[in-house]
Amino acid sequence: MAVRAHSVALAAPLSPEDMGLQSMPDASPSKWHLAHSTWFFEAVVLHPHAPGYRVFDERWLYLFNSYYESLGPRHPRPQRGLLSRPSIDEVWRYRATVDKALLDFIDDADATIWDATAALIELGLHHEQQHQELLLTDLLHAFSLNPLQPAYCAAAPPPTREKPAASWLEFPGGDATIGHFGSGFAFDNETPRHCVRLQPYALRTTLVSNREYSDFIADGGYRRPELWLSDGWAAVQTHGWQAPLYWSLDGDQPLSCFSLYGAQAWQPDAPVCHLNFYEAAAYAEWAGARLPTEFEWEAAATHPDLHGMFGAVWQWTRSSYDPYPRFRPLAGAIGEYNGKFMVGQIVLRGSSVATPAGHARASYRNFFPPAARWQFSGLRLARDC
Amino acid sequence: MAVRAHSVALAAPLSPEDMGLQSMPDASPSKWHLAHSTWFFEAVVLHPHAPGYRVFDERWLYLFNSYYESLGPRHPRPQRGLLSRPSIDEVWRYRATVDKALLDFIDDADATIWDATAALIELGLHHEQQHQELLLTDLLHAFSLNPLQPAYCAAAPPPTREKPAASWLEFPGGDATIGHFGSGFAFDNETPRHCVRLQPYALRTTLVSNREYSDFIADGGYRRPELWLSDGWAAVQTHGWQAPLYWSLDGDQPLSCFSLYGAQAWQPDAPVCHLNFYEAAAYAEWAGARLPTEFEWEAAATHPDLHGMFGAVWQWTRSSYDPYPRFRPLAGAIGEYNGKFMVGQIVLRGSSVATPAGHARASYRNFFPPAARWQFSGLRLARDC
Amino acid sequence: MAVRAHSVALAAPLSPEDMGLQSMPDASPSKWHLAHSTWFFEAVVLHPHAPGYRVFDERWLYLFNSYYESLGPRHPRPQRGLLSRPSIDEVWRYRATVDKALLDFIDDADATIWDATAALIELGLHHEQQHQELLLTDLLHAFSLNPLQPAYCAAAPPPTREKPAASWLEFPGGDATIGHFGSGFAFDNETPRHCVRLQPYALRTTLVSNREYSDFIADGGYRRPELWLSDGWAAVQTHGWQAPLYWSLDGDQPLSCFSLYGAQAWQPDAPVCHLNFYEAAAYAEWAGARLPTEFEWEAAATHPDLHGMFGAVWQWTRSSYDPYPRFRPLAGAIGEYNGKFMVGQIVLRGSSVATPAGHARASYRNFFPPAARWQFSGLRLARDC
Amino acid sequence: MAVRAHSVALAAPLSPEDMGLQSMPDASPSKWHLAHSTWFFEAVVLHPHAPGYRVFDERWLYLFNSYYESLGPRHPRPQRGLLSRPSIDEVWRYRATVDKALLDFIDDADATIWDATAALIELGLHHEQQHQELLLTDLLHAFSLNPLQPAYCAAAPPPTREKPAASWLEFPGGDATIGHFGSGFAFDNETPRHCVRLQPYALRTTLVSNREYSDFIADGGYRRPELWLSDGWAAVQTHGWQAPLYWSLDGDQPLSCFSLYGAQAWQPDAPVCHLNFYEAAAYAEWAGARLPTEFEWEAAATHPDLHGMFGAVWQWTRSSYDPYPRFRPLAGAIGEYNGKFMVGQIVLRGSSVATPAGHARASYRNFFPPAARWQFSGLRLARDC
Repeated sequence: MAVRAHSVALAAPLSPEDMGLQSMPDASPSKWHLAHSTWFFEAVVLHPHAPGYRVFDERWLYLFNSYYESLGPRHPRPQRGLLSRPSIDEVWRYRATVDKALLDFIDDADATIWDATAALIELGLHHEQQHQELLLTDLLHAFSLNPLQPAYCAAAPPPTREKPAASWLEFPGGDATIGHFGSGFAFDNETPRHCVRLQPYALRTTLVSNREYSDFIADGGYRRPELWLSDGWAAVQTHGWQAPLYWSLDGDQPLSCFSLYGAQAWQPDAPVCHLNFYEAAAYAEWAGARLPTEFEWEAAATHPDLHGMFGAVWQWTRSSYDPYPRFRPLAGAIGEYNGKFMVGQIVLRGSSVATPAGHARASYRNFFPPAARWQFSGLRLARDC
Repeated sequence: MAVRAHSVALAAPLSPEDMGLQSMPDASPSKWHLAHSTWFFEAVVLHPHAPGYRVFDERWLYLFNSYYESLGPRHPRPQRGLLSRPSIDEVWRYRATVDKALLDFIDDADATIWDATAALIELGLHHEQQHQELLLTDLLHAFSLNPLQPAYCAAAPPPTREKPAASWLEFPGGDATIGHFGSGFAFDNETPRHCVRLQPYALRTTLVSNREYSDFIADGGYRRPELWLSDGWAAVQTHGWQAPLYWSLDGDQPLSCFSLYGAQAWQPDAPVCHLNFYEAAAYAEWAGARLPTEFEWEAAATHPDLHGMFGAVWQWTRSSYDPYPRFRPLAGAIGEYNGKFMVGQIVLRGSSVATPAGHARASYRNFFPPAARWQFSGLRLARDC
Repeated sequence: MAVRAHSVALAAPLSPEDMGLQSMPDASPSKWHLAHSTWFFEAVVLHPHAPGYRVFDERWLYLFNSYYESLGPRHPRPQRGLLSRPSIDEVWRYRATVDKALLDFIDDADATIWDATAALIELGLHHEQQHQELLLTDLLHAFSLNPLQPAYCAAAPPPTREKPAASWLEFPGGDATIGHFGSGFAFDNETPRHCVRLQPYALRTTLVSNREYSDFIADGGYRRPELWLSDGWAAVQTHGWQAPLYWSLDGDQPLSCFSLYGAQAWQPDAPVCHLNFYEAAAYAEWAGARLPTEFEWEAAATHPDLHGMFGAVWQWTRSSYDPYPRFRPLAGAIGEYNGKFMVGQIVLRGSSVATPAGHARASYRNFFPPAARWQFSGLRLARDC
Repeated sequence: MAVRAHSVALAAPLSPEDMGLQSMPDASPSKWHLAHSTWFFEAVVLHPHAPGYRVFDERWLYLFNSYYESLGPRHPRPQRGLLSRPSIDEVWRYRATVDKALLDFIDDADATIWDATAALIELGLHHEQQHQELLLTDLLHAFSLNPLQPAYCAAAPPPTREKPAASWLEFPGGDATIGHFGSGFAFDNETPRHCVRLQPYALRTTLVSNREYSDFIADGGYRRPELWLSDGWAAVQTHGWQAPLYWSLDGDQPLSCFSLYGAQAWQPDAPVCHLNFYEAAAYAEWAGARLPTEFEWEAAATHPDLHGMFGAVWQWTRSSYDPYPRFRPLAGAIGEYNGKFMVGQIVLRGSSVATPAGHARASYRNFFPPAARWQFSGLRLARDC
């Protein structure tokens, strides 16, 4: 119930009009996130497993299915923003109804049912947490296109004062065991745990900051093809990118960043954010370094001298999102959760300011296409040694 | 105030979420229509002419400008649906503020000011009426894409029982005087009044009905290229059109129409509606007839034996939207009202069920691109004689 | 045979590689023009009418059909440039074979057959002349995209020295009879001859020259939205147009024009060419004038004081390409020749340097979409008086 | 000279018109391949290193640069097919001129110059071999769009009669050393050699055949989303794929394949070819197996019981094209050869019927985007054990 309540809390500052916004096909309205994360419990847990459960509204099984082919057809993704009906009030009622049914179901579940569904319920909660981050990510994008520059939160926190020492931390390489272990929750894409051979490497102790990234811009970073991957350079030309998403520039000089607090003064010491993979890789090239592989990142994740591994920005790695050896998707509809996206995407590691507390872990594999800029994504440098 | 109040009344059945919907770049949210029709009075009348008038919000001059280059830049049309802010409540306040200021301005206006602005105020009211129709047109399109099939009005009127006799009414042709005359209001595109030479022609006394149009479908109308203009046939192939917009078919058999009353049983005797020009022209070809020119239509407009000239569906003509001889746009910003759109569009005549009372007249020239289907547009046949 | 031979002569300077070029979907390879103009005689005359005629190659009926739905399916227009086979040598053989068959057919035709086909053969010759102009127009476009800037003709004619006096020539208006008359050839779109009421107007005695058009550019013509039709201004923004097609500029200063003679020094006194309708209309607006209607143009066409009516550049009119009153397309496949294109296009009058001798006449209606720039198209001013 | 001569031999069956064809932006004309592979020697070897070398034509440095940003701007890739000039005769002269200069350069080179350029010359030869395969690949695509179905080679070889036993060959896994070793040539992307940990796996001894793949089609493979990666399923829907590229079907039944021999009877025992990665992965899923990783493939490459590893079809792997640990691109312009493409692509291993003799090796990494179908690409199954 804490996880479920957090979604409600996130929507508190929003009007019904705000909650209906869809600013691009990749993003979804807040209302849709609130309904879809509820749909997951209904469609995956209650509908197939709760005896006598009556679906809230048959049509909503269609409206709020995201991409589960095995659970039937679905409303076209680019048209999620056209659903003024159901209203947000109906969605609140949907949430309450499903919550109630879920609690009753848990109370009544015998061991057999519990064995069959406990993992699904747990998955549903982690799924909802993912949508909590996406709700903020997507809302920020929509608000950024409004000339009134609305703020999601009225009061911004004071700028980061803490400036941990930036240095290189060396790791000896060798065999590393990668992937989830232990009894806690993990997504299927973090498994199976397996051994990977690493060579000696170093990670930067701190995230790349806005100031560091602005040096790259001032040095012509967005005008020098030799720094970019080929697809990245083509995208720079096509889209005219000159800075991270949400930055306002005066020439090459950063002025402000649009954020959940509205337009904010540019903070040189904050981690650079809203980069895509191409930008992260070009910066690393310019800096004479490289991005870490996801394995290097994970092997080092818990080292106490590394700052900002979690809770600041997701960190692009130099690893394509491929399946781990002997990976098998989960059985049933939830087998579509991760496996079918394992092509054309890049792994990000860590977590961000928008990630719900308790959601992240060292083995967590986030992934987005290399051109995606609207996530809370930054980078940390690596190098061989 | 009656015109202004009608806009408010039209919005009464809508939620804030409904009023934010933009279903395609050509359509606008209800909220935007309500704000833009108010902006017109502010930007064209009060701001330049009312001494001491303080603009409601400088940023709204940008947000709610539609296409007036001479009044400055504007929010991109395809992004009107992303304006969750300002809220509809703020727009209501905007309307009240401008109404009050306008009434005060009228009360205070001396003869000089009145001479300069009375025509602008009148234009603003007719402008608002145009947006009242568009509000309904655009809303219907947005609702049609919602699988829940929302109804704007709960109770539909009973199907038309009246079936006027369908026959051909002949006109002798000769010189016809075309364009607005008299002291009433007209848009600049209805002027100057001028003489046109017509040849003998006949008009069908009734509009083409759903039943008649369904015969065209059943006869393979959408599969026979010889009936279509070249661009129309290409569009049929590209979009897979098989019936008017909003019809549901079972094979070639019409089942229902989506309307402001939600999905309604198909009514054979109602005028066919939501056709584009290509469909209207193909139907006429199939029927061994043609579309009337806008001049033939206007010359006959007030004949008492013609049914449905006004108030049912706009009627596509066989006339491109070209300027009348010696046409000059109005001076100032309002010169952009009509003249700059005089290419690539087709004239429609009459008015529709969605046109506000008192808005239409015989010389009125409505216009849309030939592929547009979301207007309340149908047709009446003509032939030579 | 003179018409047929002219096509061959036009291809003389071209290599087989040149003759295969298709630079955009709207343009066709020279080889295709040579084959299609032959196909017309085979598909429209010989195949249906010549007893015992054996088709050259059944597959070519498909390959070289342009847009005749009633003559069967056809090779997709954008893929005409992919036909390396048949080779140009095979096309030459095709031409010779059809020429021979056509001459035999004419020799053998009795009165009945001749009555049925003489008009088709005549149409085929005028059709071929249209493709002779298109061959040059399309080739120029293809060559313009080659960085080597190939010249179709080695030696350019000397620049025009003649500078006829530029003045306004007034016409009284009144009833004008428009459309083809007499026993000569005309396309169906020039008929029926009919009466149009004109108001007093004046035409400029000379075409707009490069120098005059460069004044428009220097005066910010491409940066002033108030001069443009709305669609035209949008196209200027989208495509970044700054001058007529094929001009090279240094800032606002014209340097050279690409032409069939390769890159040539810019000639101030030559008629401006390779404008689209939007540019022509914007220039006229800037010049405080307007474009003539096609009827004004035709009514004045043979006046001896008007220079450049024929043989220099096609002249954009302010008339959409609508059917004349009581227009009926020809019977059979050739009914698709003109009528089905009567929407979305603008009429041009006159003829150009690329028009074959004897092809043009006062009633001739050329037509292209308003955005087309690759034709030999310019303008002449008109005004009310 | 043998490598250089092979390019000439490949072009022998082609007309100048054939050699100019570009059927899509991803493909290039034969003439362009012949010129570009020559340009490589001129731009990378002779121009910077040969004292007194005079460039053949300065403009060709622009025309025939493919993607080397550090060697200056280049002709837009989608417009390569518009270069009717230079003619193929001029390209033959270009080849002869550069060949001569290169031989002179090698004769005259002292040890210092040789040390600096021998590797570049060797790279140029392997580069030319890659374009030899692409020449055939691209030509096949262009010919496939010609309704005359031209054949590149008149006489097809007899269908494969040999049917090696299909079985699973097991490998124990463990540490495998991956990447090029020895003194022979390799591209930089095959380095550095490094150790990878493999788990026990099996490979199918034979390639997937046309018959096997047709069973997948007959079992509804192209209609079952559960078999596909998400991007793959979306592409199937968008493009309407129902079979490998170049297959003709009657319902689900294969009839013929278009090939370099023209349309050929479908050969059930031939390896399936012209699949993209999505199709290969969906087939493997359907077959209850998976694609091998590129490391599994390489570790097994020389096992004598594996059939068709080389010389039949490139084999899609389940490995994204990421850099090897400590990979560094070569210095200078040739650093752009491979490294900048290491995102968004999938590794293929082996070689095909179109690969020049002597070009392939076990460590060779070919790569294409996952949607590419026009390569000679098939698959071999793997599974865990």
